[in-house]
Amino acid sequence: MRIRVVVPVTPYDTAYRTRGFYAAAARPDVEISLVCLDEGPASIECDEDEALAVPGILTAVREAEAQGMDAVIIDCMADPGLSPAREAVSIPVVGPAQAGMSLAAMLAHRFSVIGVLERDICAIERQGRAYGFESRLASVRPVNIPVLAFDRDPSGLEAAVVDQAIRAVREDRAHAILFGCTGMQGLGPQVARALAEDGRPVPVIDPTLAALKLAEGLVDAGLTHSKRSYPPREPKSHWP
Amino acid sequence: MRIRVVVPVTPYDTAYRTRGFYAAAARPDVEISLVCLDEGPASIECDEDEALAVPGILTAVREAEAQGMDAVIIDCMADPGLSPAREAVSIPVVGPAQAGMSLAAMLAHRFSVIGVLERDICAIERQGRAYGFESRLASVRPVNIPVLAFDRDPSGLEAAVVDQAIRAVREDRAHAILFGCTGMQGLGPQVARALAEDGRPVPVIDPTLAALKLAEGLVDAGLTHSKRSYPPREPKSHWP
Amino acid sequence: MRIRVVVPVTPYDTAYRTRGFYAAAARPDVEISLVCLDEGPASIECDEDEALAVPGILTAVREAEAQGMDAVIIDCMADPGLSPAREAVSIPVVGPAQAGMSLAAMLAHRFSVIGVLERDICAIERQGRAYGFESRLASVRPVNIPVLAFDRDPSGLEAAVVDQAIRAVREDRAHAILFGCTGMQGLGPQVARALAEDGRPVPVIDPTLAALKLAEGLVDAGLTHSKRSYPPREPKSHWP
Amino acid sequence: MRIRVVVPVTPYDTAYRTRGFYAAAARPDVEISLVCLDEGPASIECDEDEALAVPGILTAVREAEAQGMDAVIIDCMADPGLSPAREAVSIPVVGPAQAGMSLAAMLAHRFSVIGVLERDICAIERQGRAYGFESRLASVRPVNIPVLAFDRDPSGLEAAVVDQAIRAVREDRAHAILFGCTGMQGLGPQVARALAEDGRPVPVIDPTLAALKLAEGLVDAGLTHSKRSYPPREPKSHWP
Amino acid sequence: MRIRVVVPVTPYDTAYRTRGFYAAAARPDVEISLVCLDEGPASIECDEDEALAVPGILTAVREAEAQGMDAVIIDCMADPGLSPAREAVSIPVVGPAQAGMSLAAMLAHRFSVIGVLERDICAIERQGRAYGFESRLASVRPVNIPVLAFDRDPSGLEAAVVDQAIRAVREDRAHAILFGCTGMQGLGPQVARALAEDGRPVPVIDPTLAALKLAEGLVDAGLTHSKRSYPPREPKSHWP
Amino acid sequence: MRIRVVVPVTPYDTAYRTRGFYAAAARPDVEISLVCLDEGPASIECDEDEALAVPGILTAVREAEAQGMDAVIIDCMADPGLSPAREAVSIPVVGPAQAGMSLAAMLAHRFSVIGVLERDICAIERQGRAYGFESRLASVRPVNIPVLAFDRDPSGLEAAVVDQAIRAVREDRAHAILFGCTGMQGLGPQVARALAEDGRPVPVIDPTLAALKLAEGLVDAGLTHSKRSYPPREPKSHWP
Repeated sequence: MRIRVVVPVTPYDTAYRTRGFYAAAARPDVEISLVCLDEGPASIECDEDEALAVPGILTAVREAEAQGMDAVIIDCMADPGLSPAREAVSIPVVGPAQAGMSLAAMLAHRFSVIGVLERDICAIERQGRAYGFESRLASVRPVNIPVLAFDRDPSGLEAAVVDQAIRAVREDRAHAILFGCTGMQGLGPQVARALAEDGRPVPVIDPTLAALKLAEGLVDAGLTHSKRSYPPREPKSHWP
Repeated sequence: MRIRVVVPVTPYDTAYRTRGFYAAAARPDVEISLVCLDEGPASIECDEDEALAVPGILTAVREAEAQGMDAVIIDCMADPGLSPAREAVSIPVVGPAQAGMSLAAMLAHRFSVIGVLERDICAIERQGRAYGFESRLASVRPVNIPVLAFDRDPSGLEAAVVDQAIRAVREDRAHAILFGCTGMQGLGPQVARALAEDGRPVPVIDPTLAALKLAEGLVDAGLTHSKRSYPPREPKSHWP
Repeated sequence: MRIRVVVPVTPYDTAYRTRGFYAAAARPDVEISLVCLDEGPASIECDEDEALAVPGILTAVREAEAQGMDAVIIDCMADPGLSPAREAVSIPVVGPAQAGMSLAAMLAHRFSVIGVLERDICAIERQGRAYGFESRLASVRPVNIPVLAFDRDPSGLEAAVVDQAIRAVREDRAHAILFGCTGMQGLGPQVARALAEDGRPVPVIDPTLAALKLAEGLVDAGLTHSKRSYPPREPKSHWP
Repeated sequence: MRIRVVVPVTPYDTAYRTRGFYAAAARPDVEISLVCLDEGPASIECDEDEALAVPGILTAVREAEAQGMDAVIIDCMADPGLSPAREAVSIPVVGPAQAGMSLAAMLAHRFSVIGVLERDICAIERQGRAYGFESRLASVRPVNIPVLAFDRDPSGLEAAVVDQAIRAVREDRAHAILFGCTGMQGLGPQVARALAEDGRPVPVIDPTLAALKLAEGLVDAGLTHSKRSYPPREPKSHWP
Repeated sequence: MRIRVVVPVTPYDTAYRTRGFYAAAARPDVEISLVCLDEGPASIECDEDEALAVPGILTAVREAEAQGMDAVIIDCMADPGLSPAREAVSIPVVGPAQAGMSLAAMLAHRFSVIGVLERDICAIERQGRAYGFESRLASVRPVNIPVLAFDRDPSGLEAAVVDQAIRAVREDRAHAILFGCTGMQGLGPQVARALAEDGRPVPVIDPTLAALKLAEGLVDAGLTHSKRSYPPREPKSHWP
Repeated sequence: MRIRVVVPVTPYDTAYRTRGFYAAAARPDVEISLVCLDEGPASIECDEDEALAVPGILTAVREAEAQGMDAVIIDCMADPGLSPAREAVSIPVVGPAQAGMSLAAMLAHRFSVIGVLERDICAIERQGRAYGFESRLASVRPVNIPVLAFDRDPSGLEAAVVDQAIRAVREDRAHAILFGCTGMQGLGPQVARALAEDGRPVPVIDPTLAALKLAEGLVDAGLTHSKRSYPPREPKSHWP
């Protein structure tokens, strides 16, 4: 099985680590390949970033299908371009936010999302509402570190995620933790351990892992998104 | 007052008529200017069309603010790019779907939207839900004529809109009619007359008119969207 | 264009100021006239006040239509009698709560309402739910000054509104402020300035202004409420 | 126990029958008294009728408390004045719509309401939403006979109610039937029998009976409405 | 009228007191009988307890109908087995949670539930959502005393219930209090008095009382649950 | 990886086929074992069946954990005992309804469920609401063949499922089909082919497949349900 990870930003130094994480988490028979965008934002932190990334995402997703990939993961918690990408191709296209929130809602009555910046709170709340999990979202708690600073201080990031996760369980009655940025990838075990040490173990869901396992399962089951929900763009034959 | 209408498609022959409609409906002290996109789709009929239009919309909206416009209307019922456009500028940016649905919900307990194609039904239902009018939407009834064919048979379009509007009131208990495409602009009086002749007069809301009057009112009142809901894109100072 | 403001209370000393505010905010071509009720409550602070005001409101609204007015504004945030008034006449009847909440929901993802008394909280929450804005209401924060004391200490009122508005933005994540009483009319600029000085500028929406601009726009667009939603009272021909 | 039935219309010929129905359905230790309004509408068929009835209802409810009644029933499915009446007094004030819908929702997953006129559909749907039973309302089916004609053709009314009840169960998957007008009082057994003969027996709920049994139970249990939800009108001490 | 109380646990020492409470609260013409389960849990404090109690509840409910009882109350706030019990018999089967929440929602805009343990919060929130009272639930506040310890320190229980009730009214804006465990039976007057002394009197609803009065009213009105919502188990005639 | 399938009914002739289906669909490294209940119903077609199955399910689930299984699937679309089973063990326990509805909601905006009997409609609607997919459920369409007759006429069952699936897509605007009974296991390809031949291809989701792939993914990811949502039953140490 071949899964393509589309990271919807321009190339970055540690992309090999992103690929490595996916490859390590994938089943042995799964081949992971990863692409960044030729053109697009350096990070996705607002609706404009997202809008600027979508044209490149569509190109990358079409390429993945043309190259015989079995599924595509759009590696960003905003699920940017998920809907037009599903119009564009017939292979499964998976978004970490949709996959991660669905998983969280299946495993726990309430979950909290660890966001990046204050401005994410509202965006994640609206995303939760759109996906149907409004009443399950205990809270959104940002770490207040910009995405592009994640790599400069990994232990600071980890400490901040742990801190907010503990607060979410203690103060907001969260029954599960969902990372709100794919840049927090790989922190799951550490955060889970910290919560257990705090005497409040709850599932810690890495949305990229949720997306990967959803993609694998869809390919196994021969399923993909409905083309009635995502009908293909029709040729503009009626040009006036 | 100067209002800029951004039609989020590439230039089309009858753009002067669009401008004319807005100009005729505007208050005497309002100056309407209209731009199309340099690059983008010829029509917006799916999520990919929308995605391809947004970068051009952002450029056009920034230009409008730079040129001293008082407000911007994005002339498409998908409200494409409304959210990133509001991040990009501080002058009011208005979308016909949001303005039209809000107006319909204020004037009637239930309203139907006259859509373009079958595939619009789901999109408009989700839009209604996102804007909070889920329980107010009586039905979405498409005319099943592609947007780019509107201009080739205006009387066919009118007949189809009238037909669906009458069915919506008769069969779906619609208490108001909202056009589901800005390309139906100007048909309000004819549809209203047909409904009255059918013995079932209800308000017929042209969303472009709703958007225009909202824009005028916002400028008058010195109001614009909240920058806390639409914070500006921050400079990518942290490039790794 | 002639707009009638119906203040649904018995005459009060500063009614000229209310009229003046509307007149100043109206477009140059709009003529504002204002009436109070011959009989009714001195203020509207509970459901009984509201009930006692409605018969007088209906008389005033019918008079307005008979006198050729183009639209009516019921100057109270409870929107008292909005529904029967719309049954009674065909000209647009506008309520500041409906107009203000709709505007707030269009400009911001979340808004707070500055109420009068503790007892208003629940009433405004239920109003928000009835109008469809349940998930958009960040909080209701009363000033705890009775309406009839507003005029005695205008600067105390202003300070209290500013204080609650700042708390709403800081503590409740409000992205816009909506006044919860038409008696707070005119405080918009001061509150907006105070919020800006606090480093948290958000739109401050005066519901009377929202109602006025909605009324102007409706008259311009030739629109009014749906008589299917608000069918006229039928003659009691079947008296037994 | 003494229960006062306030029929919120001016006196009518068959009021003795209304009283008789309540008296027959009440427990032996309950004394039923009934009053009409001195001033008000002849029937309640629109929001204006309702508004005109409320001042008289408030007088009647206060009188009931002053005369030592244990509870009050407002005999109309619009629950007119329920909220201000609860502000006005401390004894339980019960509305047939609230009592009947609550009972229907406890006994069945879905219920239909048999309304009076087409125009009731929307009103009853909104009432159901306000009381929290939106997802439980299978349909509203009007008999299309004006209230004031009920007494002239009782068997015609019965046939129409039976007809709509059968359609609701057959076509709308109703699991219970709720009368949508207190004027249908007493038809319960006939409608239940007709449904059983049709092979589709479901509970038929007479809202006046639901209100009566709720009132009896509240008095037994020493309970009444919360004065925090319905705080009393405060004296207008601050008159300017 | 004969009402059977099924306490869905194995026999306990103070069952005579439970029976006594119901008997004292019942109307004079009502005969209360009480049974425990032959086999089942000693208390119901989790979903497993509930599951283990249901088979015994079904036996007890069928026995009650066979013995000519007029109605059954399942004496537990989890309403365990309410749905299959209604399938099993035709006499009314009443659950204190459904009855109590409905009553609370009729008497107050918002209510809080006094729960037993921290783990109840989520269960009661989901129950409230299932019954339609999601937006009416102000809070769930547990006393953190296990059910089986209630009898060992009655005054400690009372103090804890009073304490949480006062906090619910003060801090969560509760307008009514509902006990979250039938083991709190009889504490209503004390809690009501304590709230009144705190200057915040609100209705205090004992769910067993709500269930009893609902049962009495249903029998009086000749009503029971819909067999279309709770169709009987069909014989397994198709055994392969 | 070892996955235990608990079929919550007494042993049946074709259990080997159920096991075979799971085994064929599982990844090569997954070992499927299947158990029926020693005691319980022959089929699950009502709430009583479900209640009678739960004690046996709990025993089977505990056994699975004791035997070192990695995950458990409860093979019934009612998800019977899902909640107490999750209290009982720490390994993932998966229900086909929750897994199937979540998957359907991720792949399509709207989906229909093919039910067994008329009486399932309401049950599935309530299940959909509890899991958060209320607005996504296009319809529930039963085949009206009792579960225990499935095996006697497999081609009749297939024809009925195909027929209802086609109607759901044509008439109810379903964008995906979800089987409403695990007894329909294996019909996916046939139904998908029939829909494609009808010119309306949509995803056909076999809930047992959804459950299996979810279970595999959870084990891979080291995730299980939250013990805060499903806390273990505590020892009844306080027996009075």
